[in-house]
Amino acid sequence: MITSTQNAKVKEWKKLKTRKYRNKLRRFIIEGEHLVEEAAQSDWTMVEVIVSEGYEGQLHNKVNGSIILVSEQVFKEASDTETPQGIAAVIEKKELTFKNEPYTLLLDSIQDPGNLGTLIRTADAAGFKQVILGKGTVDVYNEKTVRATQGSLFHLSVLQGELEDVIPKLIDDGIPVYAAALEGAKAFKEIEPSSSAALLLGNEGQGIADAYLQLSTEQVFIPIYGQAESLNVAIAGGILMYHFKG
Amino acid sequence: MITSTQNAKVKEWKKLKTRKYRNKLRRFIIEGEHLVEEAAQSDWTMVEVIVSEGYEGQLHNKVNGSIILVSEQVFKEASDTETPQGIAAVIEKKELTFKNEPYTLLLDSIQDPGNLGTLIRTADAAGFKQVILGKGTVDVYNEKTVRATQGSLFHLSVLQGELEDVIPKLIDDGIPVYAAALEGAKAFKEIEPSSSAALLLGNEGQGIADAYLQLSTEQVFIPIYGQAESLNVAIAGGILMYHFKG
Repeated sequence: MITSTQNAKVKEWKKLKTRKYRNKLRRFIIEGEHLVEEAAQSDWTMVEVIVSEGYEGQLHNKVNGSIILVSEQVFKEASDTETPQGIAAVIEKKELTFKNEPYTLLLDSIQDPGNLGTLIRTADAAGFKQVILGKGTVDVYNEKTVRATQGSLFHLSVLQGELEDVIPKLIDDGIPVYAAALEGAKAFKEIEPSSSAALLLGNEGQGIADAYLQLSTEQVFIPIYGQAESLNVAIAGGILMYHFKG
Repeated sequence: MITSTQNAKVKEWKKLKTRKYRNKLRRFIIEGEHLVEEAAQSDWTMVEVIVSEGYEGQLHNKVNGSIILVSEQVFKEASDTETPQGIAAVIEKKELTFKNEPYTLLLDSIQDPGNLGTLIRTADAAGFKQVILGKGTVDVYNEKTVRATQGSLFHLSVLQGELEDVIPKLIDDGIPVYAAALEGAKAFKEIEPSSSAALLLGNEGQGIADAYLQLSTEQVFIPIYGQAESLNVAIAGGILMYHFKG
């Protein structure tokens, strides 16, 4: 059992809280029973399972990788949550490649980790199979994002991509790309649900970059009936994905 | 200018962070330029505006109430945010009463302040004019909730109510009450949008209490096409409100 917070492993886990180190090691850390279960059930590779001495839960799915027992204090040190559940895992990143998926979500510069995670979870629910993260989008392996996906990260193909390449590829393949804009656009209900649709969402404050808007098939908006200035981007994504999915 | 954190006013502002004290004083505190602007534009009564000596912004709308200048340290002490904007206000609670509004949102035991705030903001956008908070729902005057409403709290009628009284009243008045359930229900798109609809949403984990489900006109669900176990309650609310609104 690891009891020292100075242990090399513990230091490595703490470093995995930074994007730089996650990129270097090509690993990330997840925390909590539900996420570890979801990862174990998936085809992602689990490198290590970190179990606190006080952990009282049970894992229902076979976990792979080495199981490392640590003291409660060490777990707390490595943990990102206020009330740690006593179980975490180090996961290997997967090499994913872009496909012409009929239902794809495209994200331009989403900044909030919670919004990104919720969008991935919602895409999973709505039957969208691929999420492309354009430049300026927060790291999907950020612990807050992973937590907000509630495991959907392991169900879908979530990858970084150049939106200026990806949008034309989808359109060439007959998949319309609808950009969620605020103005000069068509109300979303005017567009009929169809057997394929990509949805492009933009930054919480600035919206979608002009270059991407111009590449898109059509700009759509969600009407505001009251006095709110806008909708949260994850809410907008949920409404639009469920509309296009038909 | 108040420079001591021991000042009676400062102590009062800090106490307004608790529900108990907000109920006692019938006041609450809001923070940041946007929210203060929204409150100033509304018909809510502003008791005090708290301005930090370092505040560089400008208020575009006339603010009422006394303006109290405080040192940066005092502002930080009273503030709830990590990077305070230097402006806050104390607002008087409003007496609101239930009406048979054609578009009403009913909430049973929503626990997360961010979810509640986002639901209120989304209700505002979707043209729902009234939000009824059933027993067990987090306090709407919680600072996190108020922040997540982005000012929509001042646009709508948000009030506590007994769902077992409110549901039959709406139905008696010809307003159907749709309960968002997970099972044994109708897919939401099977229900035609109409000129009036109340939506009932339940607790993040437990869903809606049986007693309320039984009082409702119909149970509806959002189909899950992928492997996600569920949708975030605010996302579900957004999808359903925009569907019913037509």
